Amino acid sequence: MTQPQSSGARTADNVMKLDSFVRGKWSGPGEPAAEIHSAVTGDVVAVTTGSDLDMREILAYGRAVGGKHLGKLTFHQRAGLLKALADYLTKHKDRLYKLSFHAGATRTDAVIDVDGGIGTLLAYAGKGRRELPNSKFLLDGNVEGLSKGGAFAGQHIVTPLHGVAVHINAFNFPCWGMLEKLAPALLAGVPVVTKPATVTSYVAYELVRIITESGVLPEGALQFIVGSTGDLLDHLTCQDVVSFTGSADTSQKLQRHPVIAREAVRFIAERDSLNAAILAPDAVPGSPEFDLFVKEVAKEMTVKAGQKCTAIRRALVPSAQLDAVITALRDRLAKVTIGNPENDKVRMGPLVGLGQRSDVLAHVAKLRAEAELVAGDPGNFALLDADAKRGAFVPPLLLHCVKPLAATAVHEIEAFGPVSTVMGYDDLDQAIALTNRGGGSLVASIYTHDVPAATELAFGIGSFHGRVAIIDRDCASEHTGHGSPMPQMVHGGPGRAGGGEELGGVRSLQHYMQRTALQGSPAMLSGVTGRWFKGSPMLEGDLHPFRYHYDDLEIGRTLVSKSRQITLDDIEHFAHFTGDTFYAHMDEEATKGHPFFPGRVAHGYLLLSFAAGLFVDPDYGPVLANYGLDSLRFVKPVQPGEQIQVRLTAKEKMPRNKQYGEVRWDVEITTGTGETAATYELLTMNAMRG
Amino acid sequence: MTQPQSSGARTADNVMKLDSFVRGKWSGPGEPAAEIHSAVTGDVVAVTTGSDLDMREILAYGRAVGGKHLGKLTFHQRAGLLKALADYLTKHKDRLYKLSFHAGATRTDAVIDVDGGIGTLLAYAGKGRRELPNSKFLLDGNVEGLSKGGAFAGQHIVTPLHGVAVHINAFNFPCWGMLEKLAPALLAGVPVVTKPATVTSYVAYELVRIITESGVLPEGALQFIVGSTGDLLDHLTCQDVVSFTGSADTSQKLQRHPVIAREAVRFIAERDSLNAAILAPDAVPGSPEFDLFVKEVAKEMTVKAGQKCTAIRRALVPSAQLDAVITALRDRLAKVTIGNPENDKVRMGPLVGLGQRSDVLAHVAKLRAEAELVAGDPGNFALLDADAKRGAFVPPLLLHCVKPLAATAVHEIEAFGPVSTVMGYDDLDQAIALTNRGGGSLVASIYTHDVPAATELAFGIGSFHGRVAIIDRDCASEHTGHGSPMPQMVHGGPGRAGGGEELGGVRSLQHYMQRTALQGSPAMLSGVTGRWFKGSPMLEGDLHPFRYHYDDLEIGRTLVSKSRQITLDDIEHFAHFTGDTFYAHMDEEATKGHPFFPGRVAHGYLLLSFAAGLFVDPDYGPVLANYGLDSLRFVKPVQPGEQIQVRLTAKEKMPRNKQYGEVRWDVEITTGTGETAATYELLTMNAMRG
Repeated sequence: MTQPQSSGARTADNVMKLDSFVRGKWSGPGEPAAEIHSAVTGDVVAVTTGSDLDMREILAYGRAVGGKHLGKLTFHQRAGLLKALADYLTKHKDRLYKLSFHAGATRTDAVIDVDGGIGTLLAYAGKGRRELPNSKFLLDGNVEGLSKGGAFAGQHIVTPLHGVAVHINAFNFPCWGMLEKLAPALLAGVPVVTKPATVTSYVAYELVRIITESGVLPEGALQFIVGSTGDLLDHLTCQDVVSFTGSADTSQKLQRHPVIAREAVRFIAERDSLNAAILAPDAVPGSPEFDLFVKEVAKEMTVKAGQKCTAIRRALVPSAQLDAVITALRDRLAKVTIGNPENDKVRMGPLVGLGQRSDVLAHVAKLRAEAELVAGDPGNFALLDADAKRGAFVPPLLLHCVKPLAATAVHEIEAFGPVSTVMGYDDLDQAIALTNRGGGSLVASIYTHDVPAATELAFGIGSFHGRVAIIDRDCASEHTGHGSPMPQMVHGGPGRAGGGEELGGVRSLQHYMQRTALQGSPAMLSGVTGRWFKGSPMLEGDLHPFRYHYDDLEIGRTLVSKSRQITLDDIEHFAHFTGDTFYAHMDEEATKGHPFFPGRVAHGYLLLSFAAGLFVDPDYGPVLANYGLDSLRFVKPVQPGEQIQVRLTAKEKMPRNKQYGEVRWDVEITTGTGETAATYELLTMNAMRG
Repeated sequence: MTQPQSSGARTADNVMKLDSFVRGKWSGPGEPAAEIHSAVTGDVVAVTTGSDLDMREILAYGRAVGGKHLGKLTFHQRAGLLKALADYLTKHKDRLYKLSFHAGATRTDAVIDVDGGIGTLLAYAGKGRRELPNSKFLLDGNVEGLSKGGAFAGQHIVTPLHGVAVHINAFNFPCWGMLEKLAPALLAGVPVVTKPATVTSYVAYELVRIITESGVLPEGALQFIVGSTGDLLDHLTCQDVVSFTGSADTSQKLQRHPVIAREAVRFIAERDSLNAAILAPDAVPGSPEFDLFVKEVAKEMTVKAGQKCTAIRRALVPSAQLDAVITALRDRLAKVTIGNPENDKVRMGPLVGLGQRSDVLAHVAKLRAEAELVAGDPGNFALLDADAKRGAFVPPLLLHCVKPLAATAVHEIEAFGPVSTVMGYDDLDQAIALTNRGGGSLVASIYTHDVPAATELAFGIGSFHGRVAIIDRDCASEHTGHGSPMPQMVHGGPGRAGGGEELGGVRSLQHYMQRTALQGSPAMLSGVTGRWFKGSPMLEGDLHPFRYHYDDLEIGRTLVSKSRQITLDDIEHFAHFTGDTFYAHMDEEATKGHPFFPGRVAHGYLLLSFAAGLFVDPDYGPVLANYGLDSLRFVKPVQPGEQIQVRLTAKEKMPRNKQYGEVRWDVEITTGTGETAATYELLTMNAMRG
């Protein structure tokens, strides 16, 4: 990227003119603002166009229009949007691959970016449907009693922020970076303003073009700002979120912005990271783990030309294996074909631009003050189908730091390219200390087949890392790699890595939602949250609760059953019928001195079965099935001769589809003396009326 | 507090000389640094002493010594420390009450501070034992499959930070403020450096004296810095945490500190908050909710002389009720006796000092530009047993803002004393808009007996608040009050309130721990985490798993049972024996067209009971009891004639005491065709070998 000027650069056939998508429409191209060059040829491929965007209005529009539309949907409905969007993007992804070549991405690199982003949408769509309720807010935890008499209680609720998510993305993954931030925000119900890094903004632009063409997202759910965000931060409030991926410098500037501090705007950062790979002592040359280590270090140096926040910057190896590791890596890296990423034979393309190339080489110069270059020469390397003078090419550069404990630069300077430093360690304590010298990282990987060593390393470095991957022969064929954030697992790290956390499945919704402690009487709490709990009012009537259709069943609807005596005959009979002749049910003598049982007791499963016999309404009706049971606790043993009785109360409802919905029942089995014998939650599927 | 000089103030009989407790010992009094005056008499009651503390060493000592000792303990053991500490403090709490009078606290105020703090320790001790495992780290969520073939998976773990928790406390609750931050940090395993607000630091000092006398805490777990923290922030790392309670100005300065941003130091703030109380439309004069509202507003103005972050600063009432509310509040406030807090008849003491008094009066002057003073006169009020010229007395001051939608100061300026502003609203939307004009608050309370109104208000203001209390006749006798944070519920709020979150039971441990995504093969993951999951290796042998004592039972130990056929007779027999004659088990005709059942199916409880018969080892042995069952799902219905078989695998172990421990078993019932019919987790209590 350069400022527009008579740059002398050639111009590609179709220079894209990038504009912004704000307040429901494309802003239209304004005056050319910055030229963006091909990483491969140096040709101008796109021009950002300056526009007079009113950032306050953009935020206000997002909050009012996007927030309103998303707020009307349940989590399941929003998950459906993500699914539909992923499906549409899949059909049009070739448009994104094609543009990615300009950014230096090989086909493999582009797949990581494009398909990785679509996969993240799909993962959130799936998790949204499976792990979130079909409602508009979350209940967090159980009811907490707050008074002795039970008249006052608390329940945490989690509701979407009434603001906008401002996503500021890095240049390296224009598609994945946008979509991995978009998915949780939209699923939470919060509209997004997304801002790509300028140097690859034409790929992000095309992605947003496809998204708007799809017509999937509701009005206001997504806005896209190409170029400067101007005074956007000045207009943020406590309901907005900033999620940033990029350099530590910019991140610190944003974090220290007065409005971020004044309004306590949520700020999530993912920035520099000196990720380590640790070869454990058991992984000697010839072991599968040694080979996996060498393969992974080389791969992380060359995929995306090492322009990944998660790439391995530090390769820690037992001092005894230094030579073997360096030799193996040198051999492997020598086979990497560098050149035009559109050429199928090329394994590694250029960096994203000449500016990035200068930065990387300057950082390598600093590293070389502490480490020796042992593979690769930035001044001399072969190129396939490309011109070294016009493209931003750098070969894989491997360094070796002889005194890593005394060094600083190798633990602190991130050369964001195909660069890594090998360093030796003497024992696991030293490996842990060296790894943690990164000052907080996104990820570390451990290569070992030794569970105790893995355990010591994992817990030694855990609190400095957002992710720790243990790679061995057992997962060799399927592991997803040191460098790949997975949507199910958290991505982010403490300290130098920014202190942020993204992904991790539905965990990431927390960034876009507020947890609120709701307090009140049991009746009020269950009325407001729609969840009955013990102490809330019960509704009893002549009609059996199983006779209500899903739609008509009220929370709190209760059946108190008749009593039934449990006889010794029942216990004997049940034991012989089922085969469960456990001594505590059969042998009075054997229970003497038992810590829990006063003598022979009824089987827990006998209680459950009799309870079902007491509460069930046998005839055909709206209850389709008992599909499960949660949190069963046998609180007090029941002895022969005791009576049992059951209370069954509708606790919670969740629509599944138009035919039926799930009902969660609170069940309590009591004895003749009124003591609780067992508690559980019963799950039924109930038909809709209609 | 003033700088030491010939202040002319009288000196109390026993002027306390305050020193710091660092690196395992009291620093010893150095040169007098600042005099602290009684809020009541103006006498000097304590002097802070300057000392040459090396902040870098203090942090390093905490991390190394405190971290090491706490790191050796399990959550249950740390919970035991909190319990022992609470018990010791209870015995010596009179020493704290006595000093609290100097700070202007009435006996009631002191009980909130001292007993509230001890109660928080006890709550964390209880929750630590009940809700946390008896181990040193947490598993967060379930295993996530990360590959198609099942060879690679992920599990989130949560481990203590390897740093120090720096707690910077406010002046208003020197005991509760210290202890509510201390409890979760210690329970998480992170040592604390605590810094009291100077003006009440003599109370905090006495508290730390008692704690050190108790000998309960391990070496290095607690350090105490009285006076300036010097360059402490410069030495923080990504493993440290700063938790601040105090003014918005100081908070923003801390948050924007370059080291906080550079190291991404976790920063938790609790600061200004313009909390609202909302009288709902149904709560007309004469209703219990109207009276509760008036009582709570008056109480929140006068408890601690209104020096509470959670106090009601804005009282929102339906415009029609403005006169009635102002009249009722004026009457109630007129009855508040102000004066020497040691006098039993006094309901409200002075502010904490003359500086605070000046601040409050200056803020009131600003509020009066937008609101009229309708009760109280700072220049004219009665005092009992005190000298208005020497003490920091301010009477309750009630204001009325006529145009709250146009106003700004009443929503933004926190007069941290007995000051509140009444404002009218026209409808619920306006009440929500006005409440949220606070820009993020710690708490709001709603006075209503109307569930729909409560629901609309709660969800309308939820994302702007950390806590929402709904007060009505049903909880009148037991509600814990608008202003009282409870240890079970989160405390903190977005925006102006600082964006922090404290308390909320074990939720608050997250601030002192790191979540890490651990990835690896199933064997490696279960080896490192100690939790078996499906796909991890199973151990099968001749000895039945129920024959192993707790100590000897290995995770993964598995029994695969024999098969058993389920006959129509079994189903009929079970139905008539238990009484569970649900149509799906009894009536082939009725199941026609059923969405889930292909015909008559076996009872789920019959499957469970037969499964127990298949896996149970009947003779007396180490398995003491089956005490519960979790996450049972009936995956596939079983029809008459089908075979079932059970797999039972030891999934997780947790020691309960020296006699026995809990074992969680993974159970799967399969059919003759190998399909899963049901899955669940079985809980047994197993004897130790002894």
